Amino acid sequence: MRLVIVGGVAAGMSAASRARRFDPAAQIVVFDRGEWISYGACGLPYVLGGDVEDFGDLVARTPEQMRARGIGVRLRHEVTGIDAAARTLTVLDRDAGRTVTEPYDRLLLATGVSPVRPDWATTDLSGVHVLKDIPDGQAIQASLDGARRACIVGGGYIGLELAENFRARGLSVVMLEKGPDIAGRVLDPPYQQRVRTVVEEHGVDVRCGVTVTGLTGKGGRVTGVQTDAGLVRADVVVVSVGVRPNTALARAAGARIGKTGAVAVDARQLTSVDGVYAAGDNAEATHRVTRRRVHIPLGLTANRMGRVAGVNMAGGHATFPGILGTAIFKTFTLGVARTGLTQTEADALGLHAHSVDVSSTDHAGYYADAKPIHVRLTAERGSGRLLGTQIVAHGHLSAKRVDVVAALLQQRATVQDLFDCDLAYAPPFSSVWDVLLVAADRLHRDVRAG
Amino acid sequence: MRLVIVGGVAAGMSAASRARRFDPAAQIVVFDRGEWISYGACGLPYVLGGDVEDFGDLVARTPEQMRARGIGVRLRHEVTGIDAAARTLTVLDRDAGRTVTEPYDRLLLATGVSPVRPDWATTDLSGVHVLKDIPDGQAIQASLDGARRACIVGGGYIGLELAENFRARGLSVVMLEKGPDIAGRVLDPPYQQRVRTVVEEHGVDVRCGVTVTGLTGKGGRVTGVQTDAGLVRADVVVVSVGVRPNTALARAAGARIGKTGAVAVDARQLTSVDGVYAAGDNAEATHRVTRRRVHIPLGLTANRMGRVAGVNMAGGHATFPGILGTAIFKTFTLGVARTGLTQTEADALGLHAHSVDVSSTDHAGYYADAKPIHVRLTAERGSGRLLGTQIVAHGHLSAKRVDVVAALLQQRATVQDLFDCDLAYAPPFSSVWDVLLVAADRLHRDVRAG
Repeated sequence: MRLVIVGGVAAGMSAASRARRFDPAAQIVVFDRGEWISYGACGLPYVLGGDVEDFGDLVARTPEQMRARGIGVRLRHEVTGIDAAARTLTVLDRDAGRTVTEPYDRLLLATGVSPVRPDWATTDLSGVHVLKDIPDGQAIQASLDGARRACIVGGGYIGLELAENFRARGLSVVMLEKGPDIAGRVLDPPYQQRVRTVVEEHGVDVRCGVTVTGLTGKGGRVTGVQTDAGLVRADVVVVSVGVRPNTALARAAGARIGKTGAVAVDARQLTSVDGVYAAGDNAEATHRVTRRRVHIPLGLTANRMGRVAGVNMAGGHATFPGILGTAIFKTFTLGVARTGLTQTEADALGLHAHSVDVSSTDHAGYYADAKPIHVRLTAERGSGRLLGTQIVAHGHLSAKRVDVVAALLQQRATVQDLFDCDLAYAPPFSSVWDVLLVAADRLHRDVRAG
Repeated sequence: MRLVIVGGVAAGMSAASRARRFDPAAQIVVFDRGEWISYGACGLPYVLGGDVEDFGDLVARTPEQMRARGIGVRLRHEVTGIDAAARTLTVLDRDAGRTVTEPYDRLLLATGVSPVRPDWATTDLSGVHVLKDIPDGQAIQASLDGARRACIVGGGYIGLELAENFRARGLSVVMLEKGPDIAGRVLDPPYQQRVRTVVEEHGVDVRCGVTVTGLTGKGGRVTGVQTDAGLVRADVVVVSVGVRPNTALARAAGARIGKTGAVAVDARQLTSVDGVYAAGDNAEATHRVTRRRVHIPLGLTANRMGRVAGVNMAGGHATFPGILGTAIFKTFTLGVARTGLTQTEADALGLHAHSVDVSSTDHAGYYADAKPIHVRLTAERGSGRLLGTQIVAHGHLSAKRVDVVAALLQQRATVQDLFDCDLAYAPPFSSVWDVLLVAADRLHRDVRAG
């Protein structure tokens, strides 16, 4: 049994490890077009900010460690073609400049996503970057040397993490966002505004409703970003305006692509093509709240999908439980989190949803250093079923309370169920009535009424 | 309708507020034998440590604020007798030195608990204290003036909170515990040991397996604690060896007392006597995991019971959902939490329970300032039903993750359900696989096997 995995980061390496454990006899080979495998891409902004010393610190397991576990790792090997009927791959060895044909019994496509690069960002100017993998991070690191002005295009969570880390290095930062506010895909508008306020307080020049039209440069280096609202001077530009799933190989294999644009898979991570699995950022998942197929590429999802795929490829049986749309990020002192649906998302789906907002402190108001925490809790009118929550916490760790609601969404619990929870209380940790309980109490009254 | 409440702290004031809201016309009177109402007793150690400036800061609502909401508050009024047939109370006005008879239509006994005072602690020596209410705290505060050596008798959570706060004031601290280790009622032995190690690292002289036999004094002031393992010199002694529910009034009313020693109540907080409710630290609760009646007096439980009682006294219908045995405390840098059952407790109940232990970091290991977190997760073999968790977190806030398990216990969820949860991940908040997920993964394999 020859198991072949294309892509050696989160999903790919999880699959390899899991398959190895499940079937000690299988031959397992991972092809990666780059030079780095098994690293935490979510940590990239923190290397740039200096909190993490070196890109190598993000690596969980080296190729040598994987090989020692009997997993073949071929770096700088790009899979360029597939014959799903013959169960073979065309693989370009980038160092040797040679193409070989590789057979597989079962194949995993863990090809991830690519950052969207608008036309204006396709340039020969140096200093213009995206941030997806370690080489991107290294390129930004090199550009930051001597730089004073950074421009981040896109106000999503990666942009917001970068803003904090660039400010930590003393750079001036301008953030350009096409939409009406930052964090627009993560939060409802009032919570977007809360994030923006704090980001601005930390010296980031946030400009929303701005469309980038081009770049200016001098001597081969970027000097500014042209927008419909004027020129923004910058030594370093990071473009962080979204990602697209890498589906070329899946398409070449004849696998069905979902409406989301990502690879369609069943609960076992199998594509529509026999023997071909997909897992990670390139694959769709089922949203447990809406039961719809969605494409929300995130680290835990990728690792979990990879694990499921690895078991199944090796002849076992595992299923992916779906996702809840849980996401969290830190920007400056803020922790921002959400799970389930926002009010905006619930409305767009035609759900009869209602939200309450509660502002409190993360722990007893009289205890030292109590920080504001803002919670929006959303439920379905009538049934009282929980739909989601959004948290903006000024002591960032408290945003992790989102997990309580995630656990209850997982169980399709109601607002009353949340209110009834015996949550932990002591003054250094929360108010007697945790802010989530306060929100549940208010929301329960509202949705019952409506 | 005259609603009378005996005891004006957590349960009593919650009941009064709730009853007021539910029935604006009812006459509501609260009798309290002391001078303080509506305060957060859990904050007392932090006033002693200096984190909270003043005992008054613990007060949520003053008598004046309560009166402004139409709630009669009679301080220094001690209810000394009851005639449940006639629905009258005998009340001693301590200032006037006069006893009056007060009628009620519905009565709430929110009489709380009293700290256990062993015979040796009944003394005329000054400097020997318990800590239950604000006057206790004020007395300790006065004793601390000029004190250098504190002896805390009892290694429970109040003792451990005090130890931190006494050390913060520069006192030397000896902690005496009769049992084999500290935090013995909260945690299983290996986790007790983790707490002890850190408490000792912070300079507390912890002595376990030690029985106190008496006190020494000079000039009316305590000078030491005599034990079966020698004399411990001390200027201040705090005795924190447990509490007993105040049930005298309930007994006088003819109300049934449960096997736990606390007042038996139904889900509406009604005692066995018509028109007489009990809520708060003096009342039993149903443990949702075991379905047994237990007596675990804690702040949220008291507030929640009071709320339920208040609605029902005012003619509404509310039920208490039961408790999960959730508890949390901070001692020095540690956060310690538990919910559900420990392995020890599950064994004592004859459950076929199994636990796994996972030690990890609270957030991504490469991210700045990752702190160790230790999690024990316990489930029932065969069914896989979650039974409980224990957390010892070196960054104290991370102990709040206990709430995720509490939420799932509430739903009678399985280990698999926990593993399937889409919990929040970003490097400043957790590992990709949150430590709870890692524990669930391991435990799932174990309990399925056996």
